[in-house]
Amino acid sequence: MRGVVLHAPGDIRVEQREDPAIVEPTDAIIHVTASCVCGSDLWSYRGIEAVSGPTPMGHEYVGVVEEIGAEVENIKVGDFVVGSFYATDNTCEICRAGYQSSCVRSVLMGEMGTQAERARVPLADGTLVATPSEPTPAQVRGLLAVSDVLGTGWFAAVAAEAGPGKTVAVVGDGAVGLLGVLAAKQLGAERIIAMSRHADRQKLAWGLGATDIVTERGDEGVAKIKELTGGLGAHSVIEAVGTQESMTQAIHSTRPGGHVGYVGVSHDVALNGLELFLSAVHLHGGPAPVRRFLPQLIDLIMSGEIDPGVVFDLTLPLEQAADGYRAMDERRATKVLLVP
Amino acid sequence: MRGVVLHAPGDIRVEQREDPAIVEPTDAIIHVTASCVCGSDLWSYRGIEAVSGPTPMGHEYVGVVEEIGAEVENIKVGDFVVGSFYATDNTCEICRAGYQSSCVRSVLMGEMGTQAERARVPLADGTLVATPSEPTPAQVRGLLAVSDVLGTGWFAAVAAEAGPGKTVAVVGDGAVGLLGVLAAKQLGAERIIAMSRHADRQKLAWGLGATDIVTERGDEGVAKIKELTGGLGAHSVIEAVGTQESMTQAIHSTRPGGHVGYVGVSHDVALNGLELFLSAVHLHGGPAPVRRFLPQLIDLIMSGEIDPGVVFDLTLPLEQAADGYRAMDERRATKVLLVP
Repeated sequence: MRGVVLHAPGDIRVEQREDPAIVEPTDAIIHVTASCVCGSDLWSYRGIEAVSGPTPMGHEYVGVVEEIGAEVENIKVGDFVVGSFYATDNTCEICRAGYQSSCVRSVLMGEMGTQAERARVPLADGTLVATPSEPTPAQVRGLLAVSDVLGTGWFAAVAAEAGPGKTVAVVGDGAVGLLGVLAAKQLGAERIIAMSRHADRQKLAWGLGATDIVTERGDEGVAKIKELTGGLGAHSVIEAVGTQESMTQAIHSTRPGGHVGYVGVSHDVALNGLELFLSAVHLHGGPAPVRRFLPQLIDLIMSGEIDPGVVFDLTLPLEQAADGYRAMDERRATKVLLVP
Repeated sequence: MRGVVLHAPGDIRVEQREDPAIVEPTDAIIHVTASCVCGSDLWSYRGIEAVSGPTPMGHEYVGVVEEIGAEVENIKVGDFVVGSFYATDNTCEICRAGYQSSCVRSVLMGEMGTQAERARVPLADGTLVATPSEPTPAQVRGLLAVSDVLGTGWFAAVAAEAGPGKTVAVVGDGAVGLLGVLAAKQLGAERIIAMSRHADRQKLAWGLGATDIVTERGDEGVAKIKELTGGLGAHSVIEAVGTQESMTQAIHSTRPGGHVGYVGVSHDVALNGLELFLSAVHLHGGPAPVRRFLPQLIDLIMSGEIDPGVVFDLTLPLEQAADGYRAMDERRATKVLLVP
């Protein structure tokens, strides 16, 4: 089969990879209908995260089940399914508490490289959720967003306790931050402040539910949030970048007793203990347990209530994956969808 | 009046201080019935926190109201009152959300120096809570604990979401950690693991509700907590020390999705962002909003349901405050009560 492989920083190739096969009786093999490039894929593409040798890429996917292992019970051949970036049993104590991304048997889907024609999905019963019917092409795009960026933005909004009566600020205007705006709106937030300096992303943010846009960053951005919230700071802040500056901005933008939901993968971030102590905020985040939200989010997509697929502003055939990576790297695209 | 003054690291003196007077119409003057030495007083006593010139000490207090300002309405002369280490209006939006320690008008009671015969209490209506009747000497000790160490341990337990069905681990066996054990028990925790290497404090911990004692620290302590919790870690961890080691131990002892409640004042602590991200814990803490819990805790003391006064293992006349500081510094005492 054809699949995307990173050979070195900046060197993305689409090449022949071995077809996946059932390894464990709990596995499924899916035909990938759509995959995409993640902001986190850029860490290795940019050489910030080292890779050892040619590395299959991709961990976001929707597709049709082609084959199942002997012990798979809930998922059938022919099902249209949505998964997320961790394969999880969904039965252990951690999964049952809603933290499937930390499942005691979790497997990173990145190891499978879902930017490909086919993919092996371990722990299929716990990982995949079938849609109630065949999705339309527009719904496929929405479901693919659910697989990672919406699931992650949604978790961030839940972790930040976005809800009725709350003012929510969103740090980061990538796909996750933008869908954090959508999530905050769905969760009933009263006011949603998107922090963005890019006109195209501001436009998306307005469309997804933002009530205010703040273009300032760092201390100036914090001052602006305070100004908009009677000097107190936002009740809820979504952090969707993962840098020292963005984490600091998020914590400082939150009122005492408020909640920071952070989902940017932290790179070289060190939080000052005393500063955090004195801020009196709640801090929660990590790898989003997307599986917790899959049934609910699939319903919202299939019923037409939300359309997170709008974050895909470039769609390419899988063979042109290198162009997609370049476009994301150069910020010419927010999120690139790949069609095998 | 007589009061405790720190002149330099290790140099505690009891000397004549000017009697406090009403400054703002919202002030009250109290006669201090009992005060005590806080673990946080040791930071400046040990020279870790600098002081500029002679500094009145103390921020824990219970006493009888002697005088009130013209605008004080809820507190009367003659009331026996309990306050905490922040004076707060208890009416601003932050206070109403339960974060009185971050009140927009907050004043640090440490500035008043409550290790003295009298003290000025700003914002008396929002800060002080009167007891329903004259407390007994044993109740006075309990109420003094409420003023800071129990209020703080209680907040830590609430922040850690201790409750029915939960396993709670407590890092730190000082007065706050020990009363965190008491709080966890009152909140209905199923299992309470106290981490302590000191026989006298272990004994107190058992008496306050600990179900297990772990003597190991650092990585070994974490391994022991994992061993006791099916490899997963505790649901709730109370951190009551404030060092890099104790924060790391607390975070690593918590299961994914679990809650760390931290109240140790962080000194030179830097939290690794990626480690925190991957831990997937909830982190909440800071200066405890003791005022939120005062009415409830006063009830528990006055009805005889709890006796946090047991943490005071050395009682001295105010004049011997220097001996009290030495005993705490040398760990000969857990908590020293001073009687003016």
